[in-house]
Amino acid sequence: MGKNTVKVGLLGAGTIGKGVVDLYKRNGASINKKIDFDLVLERVADRDENRLKALELEEKKLTTDAAHVLDDPGIDIIIELIGGIEPARSFITRALENGKYVVTANKDLMASYGQELLDMARGKNINIFYEASVGGGIPLIRPLKYSLVADRIQRLVGIVNGTTNYIFTRMAQDDLSLQDALSEAQRLGFAEADPTNDIEGLDAAYKLVIMANLAFGKKAELDRVYIQGIRGVNYKDIFYAREIGYTIKLLAIGEELPEGLALRVHPTLVPLGHPLASVSNELNAIFVESEAAREVMFYGPGAGAMPTATAVLADVVEAARCIRFNVADGVIEKSLAETAFVSIQDLTVRFYLRILAEDRPGVFAALANAFGDEGVSLDMIIQKRRVDDMAEIVLVTHEVKEKAFYQALHKISGVAAIKPDPSIIRLLG
Amino acid sequence: MGKNTVKVGLLGAGTIGKGVVDLYKRNGASINKKIDFDLVLERVADRDENRLKALELEEKKLTTDAAHVLDDPGIDIIIELIGGIEPARSFITRALENGKYVVTANKDLMASYGQELLDMARGKNINIFYEASVGGGIPLIRPLKYSLVADRIQRLVGIVNGTTNYIFTRMAQDDLSLQDALSEAQRLGFAEADPTNDIEGLDAAYKLVIMANLAFGKKAELDRVYIQGIRGVNYKDIFYAREIGYTIKLLAIGEELPEGLALRVHPTLVPLGHPLASVSNELNAIFVESEAAREVMFYGPGAGAMPTATAVLADVVEAARCIRFNVADGVIEKSLAETAFVSIQDLTVRFYLRILAEDRPGVFAALANAFGDEGVSLDMIIQKRRVDDMAEIVLVTHEVKEKAFYQALHKISGVAAIKPDPSIIRLLG
Repeated sequence: MGKNTVKVGLLGAGTIGKGVVDLYKRNGASINKKIDFDLVLERVADRDENRLKALELEEKKLTTDAAHVLDDPGIDIIIELIGGIEPARSFITRALENGKYVVTANKDLMASYGQELLDMARGKNINIFYEASVGGGIPLIRPLKYSLVADRIQRLVGIVNGTTNYIFTRMAQDDLSLQDALSEAQRLGFAEADPTNDIEGLDAAYKLVIMANLAFGKKAELDRVYIQGIRGVNYKDIFYAREIGYTIKLLAIGEELPEGLALRVHPTLVPLGHPLASVSNELNAIFVESEAAREVMFYGPGAGAMPTATAVLADVVEAARCIRFNVADGVIEKSLAETAFVSIQDLTVRFYLRILAEDRPGVFAALANAFGDEGVSLDMIIQKRRVDDMAEIVLVTHEVKEKAFYQALHKISGVAAIKPDPSIIRLLG
Repeated sequence: MGKNTVKVGLLGAGTIGKGVVDLYKRNGASINKKIDFDLVLERVADRDENRLKALELEEKKLTTDAAHVLDDPGIDIIIELIGGIEPARSFITRALENGKYVVTANKDLMASYGQELLDMARGKNINIFYEASVGGGIPLIRPLKYSLVADRIQRLVGIVNGTTNYIFTRMAQDDLSLQDALSEAQRLGFAEADPTNDIEGLDAAYKLVIMANLAFGKKAELDRVYIQGIRGVNYKDIFYAREIGYTIKLLAIGEELPEGLALRVHPTLVPLGHPLASVSNELNAIFVESEAAREVMFYGPGAGAMPTATAVLADVVEAARCIRFNVADGVIEKSLAETAFVSIQDLTVRFYLRILAEDRPGVFAALANAFGDEGVSLDMIIQKRRVDDMAEIVLVTHEVKEKAFYQALHKISGVAAIKPDPSIIRLLG
């Protein structure tokens, strides 16, 4: 039997950090009652004194020096909520070296150096918990680790970026342009001042890597993720998508194929009847397809101070239980295997394509020939409306190799009557 | 450090039992690799030799005598998949007395005697795990126990019965009558030969009690659940519901109100935009509303041999980890408080009402007066179509006390022009 009191130190008093402190203040007593031992928030470090002050904790619990948390032998668990790679990586390394359990919400770090840090933790017979790094307040990492332990996951499909989901929802509901929807999201706090990582899909890619590691038991790598952001999606695409029974979402998709892992992030047409289609606004959801359970989905708030704080504190409780009961060797991610990766070019998907073309005879034939030559068969062809002097044509292909599709597209780009830069969006298969 | 090999005994070789054996055969090696110790399926008991034979296990692992499993000192964990109260209750009691961890999928038992059995387990410093008792393959109990430990759950809304959800889906999609949809469900194995517990809402009530215990930390009681089955729902109601933007689901709803717990199971109009609305066919989902995470949903297969087997084996792994690492005192449900209950009559909800009335002057006035007198204000009135000589009238109220609504209804029943036994369905608030 271990200790009756487990002491926690917090690095970072930003929005999430304050959320954790507030939630601890509000529910700490009820948590302690549930787990039958005492979790004590011992000290909080942040460089910014004003942020520390805003926590409204006793003076002695506050410090501007992370070392006062990291090197305090009385502290058992470190919560890292600084974000980004440095100094978070050095701090977590130091915490592990000092034998402390780590709880983090840091997706960049876990996607880039998660394996290294988990290996280090394992070497020390301790652990790192990172539920809050994906899907904010949605219980996801824990179910992937424990609940689906007996199953074999085949595919993960996630709406894991709240900013882009909010933008698409607003574009669909109010026919807003992407730029207007983004401004709205920024005004409401669903997008950061610099939304690049969200808009370009990098944030979703980080989360995909973290999930794929766990789901497939393989070493997923960030630079093997195909990433396409949402900038190319026009509200017209959302309109046409709806007409043919789809909605558009930025999806993070991880698949285990016979040839290896296929990891990708891109805007995707999702059938309206699919559970992911009704995940709106800033909410997130992760749809898991597996051999035995078949389909399971986790839905909820992917960000926000209080939701994320619930995930952080749940991890703290898990770490504290490990300490309390001397549970060693909790790193279930230890046996990740090396894996091959399947390039996006070798995947078979369906495409939506919106083209502007001069409204004259022979254009359809040129299109049809280009696709026919590459063996790309078409499921739907909609010539919808005239835009100025042009005809707007929407096509949906049957399943096709990416490579063949792009070869056909290359041929089409040679047809003078067709305007360059068509909208191209993949469908969820 | 505990044992390197953990031995498991299984009681019951029915559909789920066979699923567990099959899944263990298929994925046992990969599970053992993940958890770094050996789970061994030591023995299976069933009265029926044919069912044992169908497992295709070595002869020595099979027995028709449960005692050969329960009293084998080499067995650490008992999986109970017999179902029903007896002999399951006696067997689990005996397993606990013998110091064995228990894993069960038995909702009837856990809803009726869960507290008693958990207390007994706690007294022995062991535990009972029952993930498979609610929501089949959906990770739910574990997230409620651990992931939301720092949050305060305010309301649970669940589609937890696959049979009735399948029936409503078919009625909506194909305008089937309830009876035809039920026959279809039986043909496809989504409904049992005797579907009473499903159709009458009892199955959902069992699951609600199990979830409410965990979610609210209060002792929920089966006989304090208001239960209304689906027999009163006509396909016309589904049709009208859709017209006003709703779908009909059998919901299990648990709320913590200032006056106590309110627990109920009844058909409910769910807004089409709500995540529960798109949970179709035999699938289940549990929507959790809480203070910090706000809204979280768990979706997946609520039944079926293989999905349920994943939940059972996840519990076995958790039990095995407790044994392996000598984790005592894992019963987090120990501190359930006594609670008051709020009667359905004191709840405030919105009602949908479909009435047949003679198509003559004064009927609307009589209706309006009856509602007006009881302070029931109407949100929508639709006089839709003539059925024979009658007018079909659909009303939706604003929020109203149940008591007041039924008093108004009583008055209406005195109006000769109105046919008795209108359709009455609550809305999800």
